[in-house]
Amino acid sequence: MTISENDLQYMQQALALAQSVLYITDPNPRVGCVIVHNQHIIGEGATQQAGGPHAEIVAIQDAKNKGNVALLKGATFYVTLEPCSHFGRTPPCANALIQHQISRVVIASLDPNPLVGGQGVNRLREAGIQVDVATQFVEQALAINPGFISRMSKGKPWVWSKLATSLDGKLALKNGVSQWITGEASRKDGQHWRARSSVVLTGIGTVLKDNPQLNVRSFITPRQPIRAVIDGKFQIPINAKIFNGDKVIVYTYTDDELKRETLEQKNVEIINASKTSEGFVDLQDVWADFQQRGFNEVHVEAGPTLNGALWQQGLIDELLVYMAPKIIGPGQEMFALNALSQLDGLTPLTWVDTQLIGTDIRLRLRQAARWNELLDVMQRAE
Amino acid sequence: MTISENDLQYMQQALALAQSVLYITDPNPRVGCVIVHNQHIIGEGATQQAGGPHAEIVAIQDAKNKGNVALLKGATFYVTLEPCSHFGRTPPCANALIQHQISRVVIASLDPNPLVGGQGVNRLREAGIQVDVATQFVEQALAINPGFISRMSKGKPWVWSKLATSLDGKLALKNGVSQWITGEASRKDGQHWRARSSVVLTGIGTVLKDNPQLNVRSFITPRQPIRAVIDGKFQIPINAKIFNGDKVIVYTYTDDELKRETLEQKNVEIINASKTSEGFVDLQDVWADFQQRGFNEVHVEAGPTLNGALWQQGLIDELLVYMAPKIIGPGQEMFALNALSQLDGLTPLTWVDTQLIGTDIRLRLRQAARWNELLDVMQRAE
Repeated sequence: MTISENDLQYMQQALALAQSVLYITDPNPRVGCVIVHNQHIIGEGATQQAGGPHAEIVAIQDAKNKGNVALLKGATFYVTLEPCSHFGRTPPCANALIQHQISRVVIASLDPNPLVGGQGVNRLREAGIQVDVATQFVEQALAINPGFISRMSKGKPWVWSKLATSLDGKLALKNGVSQWITGEASRKDGQHWRARSSVVLTGIGTVLKDNPQLNVRSFITPRQPIRAVIDGKFQIPINAKIFNGDKVIVYTYTDDELKRETLEQKNVEIINASKTSEGFVDLQDVWADFQQRGFNEVHVEAGPTLNGALWQQGLIDELLVYMAPKIIGPGQEMFALNALSQLDGLTPLTWVDTQLIGTDIRLRLRQAARWNELLDVMQRAE
Repeated sequence: MTISENDLQYMQQALALAQSVLYITDPNPRVGCVIVHNQHIIGEGATQQAGGPHAEIVAIQDAKNKGNVALLKGATFYVTLEPCSHFGRTPPCANALIQHQISRVVIASLDPNPLVGGQGVNRLREAGIQVDVATQFVEQALAINPGFISRMSKGKPWVWSKLATSLDGKLALKNGVSQWITGEASRKDGQHWRARSSVVLTGIGTVLKDNPQLNVRSFITPRQPIRAVIDGKFQIPINAKIFNGDKVIVYTYTDDELKRETLEQKNVEIINASKTSEGFVDLQDVWADFQQRGFNEVHVEAGPTLNGALWQQGLIDELLVYMAPKIIGPGQEMFALNALSQLDGLTPLTWVDTQLIGTDIRLRLRQAARWNELLDVMQRAE
């Protein structure tokens, strides 16, 4: 297991390729692959949209297109994730590597599924291929696929809540006015986070107040995320702007046959969920449905009620806060929560990164324990 | 007016010297001086405590101590502020420069007092000394002396409010508990801001709730700032910890002869101020008194009531926010303000700098208009 400086450089390039398909591959992971023979890159690629080829196959095809097929024998593959060893919608990548008689594979992370993880590596090694794990990039590799890794290893998605607040932590004025606390650059940046998510989740309060579309509009994207609304009482207007023809899921505990049928014609799926004793949609039901659908990343864009419920149930892994340099005074809180009686025992988040976005600042914070358990998954003993 | 690369380098060094006496010179400005002869530094210095010598005189003395007195003739002086031309507690520095037959002075800023600004430059030029203004450093020079420059040119101090909040903008829990939202590193960093200020200002609410000393304790400082309390009803307990023997000023509209006499023996000055129609101490009276006392920088460390009043009256120039990565929910707001009805017309602050401080983040924001009017003062046509 010796990783050289050259190895690190090629892996960095493979990670950049994975990053380049951030908005495309869902529900598959974003993976990059660089093929090197004798210190020359002979092919490279990244996973395509679901059902399309995985990174290794794209890179092999690239090598063939460039007339480098003969150089595959003896080559080294740099892959950001352990090559798959099972038949899914495409045949196992490990087989393709073995078939081309390559000599070495460097990976940045093991397969996060505890049931299959290591099998790709084992199969390659049995075929006489050297496999090295470049653990140096595990943080970076996780940042590219936190949702996929969480879904495969923990049975739940990676969830961030996007909040646009004033410096004094308000989402809106007392009278509900919230357009616009933050600037245009922040709103545009926020759409990039929607674009990478599997689902954009909101609550009925936000739909009734702001009537948002919650899709990606400020740039062209190959795949619109699904939108989902938590709406216990099924209050959503049938002409809400969110029903724009692209898929929407509504989670409710209220039956309304006619409304259901009307909405189903607009590409809306109505899912029955249990009602909690507080009269809220049971978020455990929603999360179970998300898992069944293979949702990796959940982008929450909601008001204090849903944010408060998600926060109190520990369902938010990361915060994406766009903060405007403004003081508002009385207004809508970020999270509707019960008052604490003491500060001891409050688990702080950790700061991930802070950046100026136009006239605002973007703060990213994360639950360190959740992140660390995913890092462990990616590095567990082979 | 040609400023060379070498000039910039020497001026940078003079600014570093000015910065080095940040906690010392009040109410005088922090000034640095570097003397160069033939590309060699022959002396340097910074202003000492009030009544002591100014930077130019310290630097000349340094040159003498180093046996360089003969090299003063023909030397260039780099001074961060226009040399003074009037008799204060010390004789005018311009005279000393002329007397030593120096050949050139480079300054980073004109004297901010509109009545005397330019006189030092004029006197030097009349004596045949070349004077150049290195406008490149005006931002940096202002950051070192915003209070002095504001006091001399605008008749009021430079004011920042230090706030320790949760991510959701709360100073304390609903029940008042605030110890500790932010970490030890933040509290220590905050003491550095106290140390540079002329006065630490708080309200009676904070005294009654937290009973703080508001002095500099986490490191040794040559000068403790004065502390001031806004206490309309004169409720402050005579044994409050803030009465530690160092000077405290209490602003009140309530008479209590006995309490006054008792406190005066503890180095406390009780100042009568008017009562506003809302029953608050008239902050204009307080600011007028600050001006009379020559206070440059005001460090506010207070609760929502005083912060709200200061904010609403436009008396806060800068915010120094230590933000903990914690969500608190219901709690004490940063500013007690009336609700706004619309977002339009709200003047945003500008971000100055953002830094990790231990486990917290420190956000500095400022009123751009105020800052720019001080920049103008420093650069006005000679």
